[in-house]
Amino acid sequence: MIKMIALYKQPENKEVFDEHYFNVHAPITAKIPGLRKMKVTKIVGTPMGKESEYYLMCEMYYDSHEAFKEAMKTDEAKASGKDLMGFAGKLVTLMIGEEIDG
Amino acid sequence: MIKMIALYKQPENKEVFDEHYFNVHAPITAKIPGLRKMKVTKIVGTPMGKESEYYLMCEMYYDSHEAFKEAMKTDEAKASGKDLMGFAGKLVTLMIGEEIDG
Repeated sequence: MIKMIALYKQPENKEVFDEHYFNVHAPITAKIPGLRKMKVTKIVGTPMGKESEYYLMCEMYYDSHEAFKEAMKTDEAKASGKDLMGFAGKLVTLMIGEEIDG
Repeated sequence: MIKMIALYKQPENKEVFDEHYFNVHAPITAKIPGLRKMKVTKIVGTPMGKESEYYLMCEMYYDSHEAFKEAMKTDEAKASGKDLMGFAGKLVTLMIGEEIDG
């Protein structure tokens, strides 16, 4: 399994971000063909008790790099990408990861 | 379940980093009392086909915030933190997260 990781910095307005993320962006993204699992994590701070510069992380699992590449060609993935850039293009960092444990 | 996330930027020397991470740091960290699961992800790039600024992510699961706080007081956690700062203090970002899906 591989995963795409989307890591979002703190938005200016958390309520506006949450509203769009959970009611619009996540449902669009969940429709991408080949997506096996979507795991959302709220970042609530740092081990030193401070606020993190990050706000939210989403991990999206695919069977393989090949499956991920095919998924990215679909209309659903393009719609998700367009929506992402519109509401959080300046906040998000995207990474592709391979889990080696767990 | 909550998780501590350690996200590492690209090291100057990947072989030296991997050698220390997998043979020294991960085994020390795995001994922390209360740690339920440790999941390591190699970052292999971005969806745009570029190299990510990040190299590795480790997710460490605990039963609760309270359990995590107790764990951080142990000698094992202090040893892990000291080792971390020694080999990757400038590379690592630490976050506490609450999974809300999955």
